[in-house]
Amino acid sequence: MEERRGSTFSPDQCMAAADSITSKVLHVLILTNQEIEQVLKMDECMSILEEMYRDFGRGKALFMPRVDNILPCDHEGAYYGFKHMGGGWPLHKIMAMRVNSDIITHPSVRDQLRRVKVPAAQDRWVGLIFLFSTETGELLAIFPDGVAQRMRVGATSGLGVKYLAREDSRRAGIIGSGWQAGAQILALLVARPIEEIKVFSLRKESRETFAREMSQRTGVKIDPVDSAEECVRKADIVLAATSSLVPVIRAEWLNKGMHVSCITSYEIDKPVLERCQRIVVHTKYQEKPVNNVLSGTEHVPAQYFERGIAPENSPDLADLIVGREPARTDASEITCFLNRMGLGLQFAALGALILEKAKQFGLGKELPPEWFSEDVHP
Amino acid sequence: MEERRGSTFSPDQCMAAADSITSKVLHVLILTNQEIEQVLKMDECMSILEEMYRDFGRGKALFMPRVDNILPCDHEGAYYGFKHMGGGWPLHKIMAMRVNSDIITHPSVRDQLRRVKVPAAQDRWVGLIFLFSTETGELLAIFPDGVAQRMRVGATSGLGVKYLAREDSRRAGIIGSGWQAGAQILALLVARPIEEIKVFSLRKESRETFAREMSQRTGVKIDPVDSAEECVRKADIVLAATSSLVPVIRAEWLNKGMHVSCITSYEIDKPVLERCQRIVVHTKYQEKPVNNVLSGTEHVPAQYFERGIAPENSPDLADLIVGREPARTDASEITCFLNRMGLGLQFAALGALILEKAKQFGLGKELPPEWFSEDVHP
Repeated sequence: MEERRGSTFSPDQCMAAADSITSKVLHVLILTNQEIEQVLKMDECMSILEEMYRDFGRGKALFMPRVDNILPCDHEGAYYGFKHMGGGWPLHKIMAMRVNSDIITHPSVRDQLRRVKVPAAQDRWVGLIFLFSTETGELLAIFPDGVAQRMRVGATSGLGVKYLAREDSRRAGIIGSGWQAGAQILALLVARPIEEIKVFSLRKESRETFAREMSQRTGVKIDPVDSAEECVRKADIVLAATSSLVPVIRAEWLNKGMHVSCITSYEIDKPVLERCQRIVVHTKYQEKPVNNVLSGTEHVPAQYFERGIAPENSPDLADLIVGREPARTDASEITCFLNRMGLGLQFAALGALILEKAKQFGLGKELPPEWFSEDVHP
Repeated sequence: MEERRGSTFSPDQCMAAADSITSKVLHVLILTNQEIEQVLKMDECMSILEEMYRDFGRGKALFMPRVDNILPCDHEGAYYGFKHMGGGWPLHKIMAMRVNSDIITHPSVRDQLRRVKVPAAQDRWVGLIFLFSTETGELLAIFPDGVAQRMRVGATSGLGVKYLAREDSRRAGIIGSGWQAGAQILALLVARPIEEIKVFSLRKESRETFAREMSQRTGVKIDPVDSAEECVRKADIVLAATSSLVPVIRAEWLNKGMHVSCITSYEIDKPVLERCQRIVVHTKYQEKPVNNVLSGTEHVPAQYFERGIAPENSPDLADLIVGREPARTDASEITCFLNRMGLGLQFAALGALILEKAKQFGLGKELPPEWFSEDVHP
């Protein structure tokens, strides 16, 4: 229940606490997704991200572009992807780097190409966040990226809702019932006092279970529906949170005053964008990642690479937050938030929050700092 | 003594052994510089680097460009630098990423600007190498970069000697007696049967101690001399290995048939290059790092940024090793090897060797792999 309400959450909420953490950390913290999930609250994630975008929008934070390195590997039909991104945020004296080390395949499921990461790491996956102090240079923490990734995507879509959806939005529709969808709902409820949510996803059982569980968790009425159209038609806010490679929202379903949000390039198409009066991208600085592909990986399908679909010169979230570009200006506009590309800086913001929480609750395993430093410098 | 001789070292020497390491590693290894220094032999470093350049030159290895991220920090007159580089080498199923997290100052010492890294990490520095398996995605090892950095620079200059110096070179001069100079000598002795080495550096005591110690270690006659000119004049091979920001070799000291090598952009100048008939750079693919500088760090001096001094279209070491460009073609040429920019791929090569050695000698602390993997994938 605590993720609910607080649509007027304060951006300062968790800032003061997180200040000057780094100089007091003496050990390298190893945290788990479970520990992080226990303590990371959506309203606090949104607060610290909002403050980060405010600094970023004013040139007070630095992002490290996402680079996708692609190599051949021995698995049948698979290739190796090493992705990294990051960012530094002086206010919190923190530098973050996120690394994904994946064996990737593209099986065709029901005539549709999918992107599947093989759990080749002893039946697990490898996505890691490394946090460093910009005050001492020290490695502060290493933890898996799963929960932070989910929360950053949800929180960012939530900030899109906060700045773009009508204040009087009460009904929402969500398409998707997977890993990302839950975080989208939590963020939605922080941003607006939503009273009713419809859920659609391809598998009936999945959407029913999801609706029941999220309803119990949030105390909000959440109902599964039988089509995407039903999910969208009467909603004030529509959130797409799928891994679909084909569009899931049709232009003709949209009504005046709606806010539409998506987390991939594929969930909406050009006709949808043409119906929107205000289109905002997550960040214009990372519209295209750097692809660094070794020969021998020619079978990597084009779908692997993100495509830009927003009109050129679209404002981004930081523009709205610093007030350089207007948010919604009237109740009849259809607004769209394209949360399709991440920003490594988000991990610096959530990282600062996670470190503070870890300290507060005594979480994590501590490793000696001398394992991760040296008495020479090349 | 064992670093000596073997100018016709075999590139296959340590290759077979290092094969298919990654699939058998079950834990994440934490290694120290001391452990690495004990087992890393210069001839083996040169062999594996040579093989890596052969693959790289044929498009069979991928480098991740060096990025320098620069942020303000609170220390007086200092800034924060987060540098990363890397590379993937399919032959060894390895991906390496090296990260440096530094507090950097530029004090003026005797009217000369220096670059000094502050040991702000509990009196230590932070430079780390992360190795990943391209077969399973797993994090294989984390270790400090000091010894590997020194060995890669030395070994690379040694390969420059192997391909460019006269076969009958017997006398060498080295300018510098610091951290890098020792590795330069070890590599020199692997590449050619040198009989006599002269050493010059600014501080008399330092060059005398260095000459004595390196002579004891290698069994070769090594004498300190009182000027750079004396060091260079009669040498067949001249190695600059300093942190000087002004040139240390003058064009008029060079003689026919000499080989000149340096490890920074500042050690030699244009007149020296104009005297050389054959100029080879370490790698043409990383002549300029990516500088990513946040506003508020305007005091970072231009010297921080590497400058290119080689003529355009200079061949690189990989060109020589794959035979795409000629090495020395006659005994009278003056050759020059500019080993001024590193390549992240070097850490993949040395990393494969270090992993093999760690396994062979049972080195390192083992951490559970589940600390560095997860059961979800975003």
